[in-house]
Amino acid sequence: MTIKQELKDVQNLYDERGIDIQKVGIKNVELPLIIQRKNDDDQYVYAKAQVSVNLHKNYKGTHMSRFMEILNTWSQKHLLSTDTKGFLTEIQKKLAASSAEVELTFKYFIKKTAPISKISSQQGYECSFKGVLENKKYTFYLGVKVPITTLCPCSKEISQYSAHNQRAIITVNISYPEDRHIWIEDLIKLIEKHGSCEIYPLLKRRDEKYVTEKAYNNPKFVEDVTRDIVLELRKNETITEFEIEVESFESIHNHSAWAYQKEIKNGVEKRKNYSMITYNL
Amino acid sequence: MTIKQELKDVQNLYDERGIDIQKVGIKNVELPLIIQRKNDDDQYVYAKAQVSVNLHKNYKGTHMSRFMEILNTWSQKHLLSTDTKGFLTEIQKKLAASSAEVELTFKYFIKKTAPISKISSQQGYECSFKGVLENKKYTFYLGVKVPITTLCPCSKEISQYSAHNQRAIITVNISYPEDRHIWIEDLIKLIEKHGSCEIYPLLKRRDEKYVTEKAYNNPKFVEDVTRDIVLELRKNETITEFEIEVESFESIHNHSAWAYQKEIKNGVEKRKNYSMITYNL
Amino acid sequence: MTIKQELKDVQNLYDERGIDIQKVGIKNVELPLIIQRKNDDDQYVYAKAQVSVNLHKNYKGTHMSRFMEILNTWSQKHLLSTDTKGFLTEIQKKLAASSAEVELTFKYFIKKTAPISKISSQQGYECSFKGVLENKKYTFYLGVKVPITTLCPCSKEISQYSAHNQRAIITVNISYPEDRHIWIEDLIKLIEKHGSCEIYPLLKRRDEKYVTEKAYNNPKFVEDVTRDIVLELRKNETITEFEIEVESFESIHNHSAWAYQKEIKNGVEKRKNYSMITYNL
Amino acid sequence: MTIKQELKDVQNLYDERGIDIQKVGIKNVELPLIIQRKNDDDQYVYAKAQVSVNLHKNYKGTHMSRFMEILNTWSQKHLLSTDTKGFLTEIQKKLAASSAEVELTFKYFIKKTAPISKISSQQGYECSFKGVLENKKYTFYLGVKVPITTLCPCSKEISQYSAHNQRAIITVNISYPEDRHIWIEDLIKLIEKHGSCEIYPLLKRRDEKYVTEKAYNNPKFVEDVTRDIVLELRKNETITEFEIEVESFESIHNHSAWAYQKEIKNGVEKRKNYSMITYNL
Repeated sequence: MTIKQELKDVQNLYDERGIDIQKVGIKNVELPLIIQRKNDDDQYVYAKAQVSVNLHKNYKGTHMSRFMEILNTWSQKHLLSTDTKGFLTEIQKKLAASSAEVELTFKYFIKKTAPISKISSQQGYECSFKGVLENKKYTFYLGVKVPITTLCPCSKEISQYSAHNQRAIITVNISYPEDRHIWIEDLIKLIEKHGSCEIYPLLKRRDEKYVTEKAYNNPKFVEDVTRDIVLELRKNETITEFEIEVESFESIHNHSAWAYQKEIKNGVEKRKNYSMITYNL
Repeated sequence: MTIKQELKDVQNLYDERGIDIQKVGIKNVELPLIIQRKNDDDQYVYAKAQVSVNLHKNYKGTHMSRFMEILNTWSQKHLLSTDTKGFLTEIQKKLAASSAEVELTFKYFIKKTAPISKISSQQGYECSFKGVLENKKYTFYLGVKVPITTLCPCSKEISQYSAHNQRAIITVNISYPEDRHIWIEDLIKLIEKHGSCEIYPLLKRRDEKYVTEKAYNNPKFVEDVTRDIVLELRKNETITEFEIEVESFESIHNHSAWAYQKEIKNGVEKRKNYSMITYNL
Repeated sequence: MTIKQELKDVQNLYDERGIDIQKVGIKNVELPLIIQRKNDDDQYVYAKAQVSVNLHKNYKGTHMSRFMEILNTWSQKHLLSTDTKGFLTEIQKKLAASSAEVELTFKYFIKKTAPISKISSQQGYECSFKGVLENKKYTFYLGVKVPITTLCPCSKEISQYSAHNQRAIITVNISYPEDRHIWIEDLIKLIEKHGSCEIYPLLKRRDEKYVTEKAYNNPKFVEDVTRDIVLELRKNETITEFEIEVESFESIHNHSAWAYQKEIKNGVEKRKNYSMITYNL
Repeated sequence: MTIKQELKDVQNLYDERGIDIQKVGIKNVELPLIIQRKNDDDQYVYAKAQVSVNLHKNYKGTHMSRFMEILNTWSQKHLLSTDTKGFLTEIQKKLAASSAEVELTFKYFIKKTAPISKISSQQGYECSFKGVLENKKYTFYLGVKVPITTLCPCSKEISQYSAHNQRAIITVNISYPEDRHIWIEDLIKLIEKHGSCEIYPLLKRRDEKYVTEKAYNNPKFVEDVTRDIVLELRKNETITEFEIEVESFESIHNHSAWAYQKEIKNGVEKRKNYSMITYNL
């Protein structure tokens, strides 16, 4: 065998199967990212990224290393999280694709102030940015996971005293038009108040008394939390579509109670090849 | 306080918010399940279940304990995995709902025979059954995750010798009409052959030589694996829709390469409120 | 290049580095397993296995496929879970090793009867069998994870009404002499009663009233649960050493409270090269 | 019922069971952390923390909120990662304990330069800091997880061409004296070179040719990687004890091959109540 002089571009070969592939890319990519905070300095986060493009039927493969090259450059320029559309436009161009998608998930920290003692601490929220570019149509999705307490209305009603309560997670994904903006901080604030009580990293005794009593005065099923957030998101005029899941890690069972709702507001065009996927993929 | 004599049905209260909820139920329920095997005895498996119904706007909550009661009965009668529609029909009726969904995921074991030594061993595959009942329209989805080896065509082409290879996972979900049946064993067989080489729990030295050389003779990108399975599933007349993901845990990177395709065959009516969800929910 | 006629045994080569390796083997092996139940039929489970031996400094490698061969045979003979020592003795012999270890983890289902309605349902418990053979010295460890409810004594004391409560997990590993036996069912029964209340898959309204009130009448910190189990395990004469962790998924925080204790009873010889490992390995 | 005027300190009550608890604290605490880099600016990371103290038999409970208060203050002062001993000394004092432990795990990014093209990209490594203070005796542990490629020597030897290869993870925990220091960057550099080849986030075609051929020229079992790192860590005079695990995600199987070694150098006093724990806790 002799050393190959030229490194052949195998991906560029003609493919005879005649199949356009909807998404091809990389996933579980770890990278540091800088997120713009509302009224504060930027926050450095550790993100997981997933990027893809469509692949035309004529080509054997996409050029995977270009995704990393572009991610790398945008991650260093601090623009990936603020100009998702610009990033996708470059991906689309450099990979000669008609559609491109990126999804970034990361833990984001926000100061929470204890209700009575007013001591503040940092709470981490799992967040996500998702951008989809189909030809020139761009859609952006913002996602947050917000831990809360739920206290069971049935348990309160039927018991002589107390009620079972537990940690629950509200997951919300929203979309809004390109010329509008919703801060992570503001979306969390909209949602967090709809549990039986909020959750805090640091509570002193007088705070603990407050949250215990507040949850008891405010019993909610997952159905109640879901409906209150549906009302909140319906009336927000910036939001064009939303998806909610509330999962409550029942303290009396080893399984969860959950509720789910997805709504697209009137007048919003539904995306043809919507990048959604069943639970068990 | 006096002891409450009657245990009030809080869930049954009238709800004033006027919001129909799309899905309410339980998830992460663990239960033993019995799966019918092709040409063999039944297999006992450990399953995770998720069940839900819609909730009419007039009611404050659904009756979560009824899901467990019905799951419990069907799990003991050994029918849950074989008569998913019957199970959903009972759920629909007992919870006075117009739609009902169930999803069961479990590890299923199939004998694999080493290619040369012919020694057999048990390989575990993550599988799922998903049933959706909307009024009287019933749809069933079968899902499997199949581990294979992929060997990189580019690495082989450009290198003087060898090529990087790695474990990859093919995830396939399919649907077929109510009056037809596809065995887990048969679906896995359709898919498994499309990697660079199959994976086996037990290989002797002469088998290891065979799989090493076979993978080298059969280099495939995730795009190649995806396209070959698309061709396979398109030509299968029983299958009405399918979804494929191929994820390759690259041995030269700490991230994955992946490809994705979803197709609904002509003439298949698209479901109105399709139970799909974004990756990061 | 010509085809190699003989398949050389590379593992058997002499190693010049002069290093005895403490453990070499396979892990994350999936296999079906049959567990003997107390007063009942056997239970089929899905197990994850980890097996290892020591490797003498003279040899380049161990023969990994032999682990699978022996696991395979013992899994089919239904003896792996009941004669762990016999399995390790064969491993030790066939791999020419002086020490051998196996660990099997699996979900095991036990019927639980609701406290008032007496309806029964299946609850899954994560369990483990671990056997260690060092020359001829054999030690066996039984592990269980038991979900319970904890209700906070501080929250109850300081609040005018109610108290925060949540799901918690008790993990217990015990050891006992070769000529004694403790059933999984019995170990779980010893532990489960020490929470504020037990957890059940299926509860009707009158049961829910009972568990809500019982937990309120029985408030416990993770420290309380730990101490009560320490007392229980100290007084059990069969048990020679134990390890306890109680982790409570606080409903008012997004983190856990936990407590940990490990005790080896007097007269029990401590193992020289104890197979323990730090949390973050 | 009247409002309780004083909020009683329940934790401070006398406990009659007479049991000293070895560890009580909080875990799965999320917090932003600042890590000092070698020859570079600090790096902001997202950490998971676990903190504990011992609890004297006279007291019913520890004061969990104090852990968060102190974590909070040290996290903001940017000292938690650089003065772990100072942090533990404060914990010990404010919780009136004789022993205290903290463990921080986080993803840390280091620039990697592709071998031929010299393009640089950021690779994330899971790292951990663990500090243990028993009375006045302080011990510090540094942990890293390093992904590499392993190429099987047996597969290479017996096959006419190619060899199976795959991603593997090397986990190393080390300890060194209080007056010495080892940078994360330096520990990773010591370890990373001992795979068949290093792993990179971004590789161009000429790099891919290089890593493919390098791995083939450098076949290694998990036993080989382990022994080479044992030699490396034995000869490093700063390191007083170490623990290594190498796990290789076999591309021809659905399970892993692994090797493990733990060594404490001569003259190092073994800790009485060593904070190690079995795999399945």
